[in-house]
Amino acid sequence: MIKVTVLYPATDGARFDHAYYRDSHLPMIQARLGAACLGYEIDEGIAGDAPGNAAPFVALCHIFSDSLESFQAAFAPHAEEIVGDVAHYTSIAPVMQFSKVVVR
Amino acid sequence: MIKVTVLYPATDGARFDHAYYRDSHLPMIQARLGAACLGYEIDEGIAGDAPGNAAPFVALCHIFSDSLESFQAAFAPHAEEIVGDVAHYTSIAPVMQFSKVVVR
Repeated sequence: MIKVTVLYPATDGARFDHAYYRDSHLPMIQARLGAACLGYEIDEGIAGDAPGNAAPFVALCHIFSDSLESFQAAFAPHAEEIVGDVAHYTSIAPVMQFSKVVVR
Repeated sequence: MIKVTVLYPATDGARFDHAYYRDSHLPMIQARLGAACLGYEIDEGIAGDAPGNAAPFVALCHIFSDSLESFQAAFAPHAEEIVGDVAHYTSIAPVMQFSKVVVR
């Protein structure tokens, strides 16, 4: 199993609508990916390496899929719609990573 | 529920022993934290924003806990042992983040 992690680095003055991300963006991705999305997680940053220190990331999401290839095959036909939706909830340029799930 | 995410940024020439991380470091943390660790995930970076691009992070782990306070109360007595174990598997300075779990 693989995990697609999208990270939104904290940036001065950045905008991020957590409600839209939770209630609209991720459900839309799940609907478009269908069976290629085995589930997802959403995190909202609250602190850095010690309480009181700012979180390095405003938000993260993690989308689980059987393989990199199955994720990409399902994502590609909807890439324009999904990427085009990002401006609705944030001004932050996301960082993206594919990982092998070692322990879930 | 909160999630403690530890990220290891990819660095030229860095060392990371994924087997030690999976088989020794994380099981040790789970044992020391006891009931304050509700479970954990381990990710191994395989690609960046496109296949063939390097993953921004060599590895990540995510430790679930009831609250920031319960995690810290359980972690503090073992901090020296846990932090001291890091040199056994990596030369990378980890980045740490506390997040609120919005969707799991």
